[in-house]
Amino acid sequence: MQRDVIVREVGLRDGLQLVKTFVPAETKLAWARAVAAAGIPEVEVTSFVPAKVIAQFADATEIAKGALKIPGPLWCVLVPNRKGAEFALDAGIRKINFVLSVSEGHNQSNVRKTTDQSFDEFRQIVELKSSKPEWKDVVLQGCLATSLGCTIEGHVPPDRVLSFVDRYLSLGADEITLADTVGYASPSEVGNLFHHAIRLAGKKPVYAHFHDTRGLGLANVVGALEAGVRGFDASTGGLGGCPFAPGASGNIVMEDLVFLLEKEGLKTGVDLERYRAVRGIAEKALPEEKFYGTIREAGLPKGFTPPSRQEAAE
Amino acid sequence: MQRDVIVREVGLRDGLQLVKTFVPAETKLAWARAVAAAGIPEVEVTSFVPAKVIAQFADATEIAKGALKIPGPLWCVLVPNRKGAEFALDAGIRKINFVLSVSEGHNQSNVRKTTDQSFDEFRQIVELKSSKPEWKDVVLQGCLATSLGCTIEGHVPPDRVLSFVDRYLSLGADEITLADTVGYASPSEVGNLFHHAIRLAGKKPVYAHFHDTRGLGLANVVGALEAGVRGFDASTGGLGGCPFAPGASGNIVMEDLVFLLEKEGLKTGVDLERYRAVRGIAEKALPEEKFYGTIREAGLPKGFTPPSRQEAAE
Repeated sequence: MQRDVIVREVGLRDGLQLVKTFVPAETKLAWARAVAAAGIPEVEVTSFVPAKVIAQFADATEIAKGALKIPGPLWCVLVPNRKGAEFALDAGIRKINFVLSVSEGHNQSNVRKTTDQSFDEFRQIVELKSSKPEWKDVVLQGCLATSLGCTIEGHVPPDRVLSFVDRYLSLGADEITLADTVGYASPSEVGNLFHHAIRLAGKKPVYAHFHDTRGLGLANVVGALEAGVRGFDASTGGLGGCPFAPGASGNIVMEDLVFLLEKEGLKTGVDLERYRAVRGIAEKALPEEKFYGTIREAGLPKGFTPPSRQEAAE
Repeated sequence: MQRDVIVREVGLRDGLQLVKTFVPAETKLAWARAVAAAGIPEVEVTSFVPAKVIAQFADATEIAKGALKIPGPLWCVLVPNRKGAEFALDAGIRKINFVLSVSEGHNQSNVRKTTDQSFDEFRQIVELKSSKPEWKDVVLQGCLATSLGCTIEGHVPPDRVLSFVDRYLSLGADEITLADTVGYASPSEVGNLFHHAIRLAGKKPVYAHFHDTRGLGLANVVGALEAGVRGFDASTGGLGGCPFAPGASGNIVMEDLVFLLEKEGLKTGVDLERYRAVRGIAEKALPEEKFYGTIREAGLPKGFTPPSRQEAAE
């Protein structure tokens, strides 16, 4: 199926990084299989961070290798440094999302590095990638956390964000993600920032990562769509959060995002009925977590067939 | 203060029409006083429907008269027929929101009339208004439920909605509200429909009434804003619902709507801190209801001062 927009599941990474319950590898892989079966085209399936920082991801190599055996999605992972990228490449991962924060204070808190040091890690990853022929086609995505505000520094100047986009591109990033890590953005700010980022990136894709902390997650998707964004992160039931925004609710809800996009006539390729299994696995694995979302309970509008399902029926 | 946009509180009407608990008049009036103190410019404070249909509104005259003594907001009421309008006018109300559904099936279920019969009721209200000099300046708003879809009939054709807007205007409506009663709409549908409705209405205001049943309430506000809408209904904690959409969540949340508008640079004149008292009264009065919304818990972004508060400080 031709998809008009890529929805990327981040429940197994962003969604798990703050939860108190350790989810066993076999459950994570069952979760990943359910995501694949629902037609999600891309999944951030784990994070290669030191186990002493986030114990949940101690099994990153096992998860990455296990996921790569599941047909369907592009399996990508988050890494904060060169070492993480090396583990990911060794596991066979074909797309790496490198993260740093535009806010200096947030980057220090999150990865204990200056932004200059983080960019140097990214430079080393680009070198590493070119060191083996089998890594040549691996996609490197440059992710910018706190692109629309920071709980530590407050306002983050768009000019600084765009200069970081430029820096990533100059170093060799194949794609960009701009993240509203703490749910500060509003639609017109989003529209403006992504408009300029897309101009800088040319033909390289620019993804959006929104948190729904202040209720504007899907409103901000509207701003991003209008700017031309065609890649969106979301998680099952809105799982996720930032360690430096306590009490904040998480990512935008995958089911609701898919409904928005399909109602706007954009094919996601996702089967919402099959996606129910993902939610079921996640709710069983994380009984103490709060799950968000409305479309799952309310059902689709009477007489509405999502464009993805229309094509599937043809 | 100059307001850029009107937010209208409908918690005391839409928010109460389905709840199981009868809220005593003194509590409703305390609620109305708290809404006024928070700077809300317009309030739909009750509904003049027969008590045998909705017992909650048996005290409509008492509430209307009591609210009119509270300085600040424009106090308006919902009416489904001429008789209700007469009660409202006798109580001293200066703005009447007449409701009918674009969907023939929904109008039958809701008010047991054909849409032709409902328009005839509206015609009689226009006549009634001109029958006494003191009623001459009363504002008549024509509201169209199910303007973006119907749980009974499914798709509702935009051409039919616009022909109903035209009919209201020809009969003498001073304002229009288009309602997504059951939460079926998406932003571009909203944008298109309101764009045309605003063209038909000329200088007469067009309000938007969105339900968040499928999570797109605030996303649809973005579509409506872009079309030029500057009047929005919302309720405290998202209370509300439609009797013909069981299990549906309610209106968009007032606090989150105000945050969206202020973050977009539009002055609402609402003080979110003072609005907390409204939520407090509503939660105490309705312990069995679910309250929605995020900004109240998450707080405003660091360093962000709403435009309304900036002006208040000057």
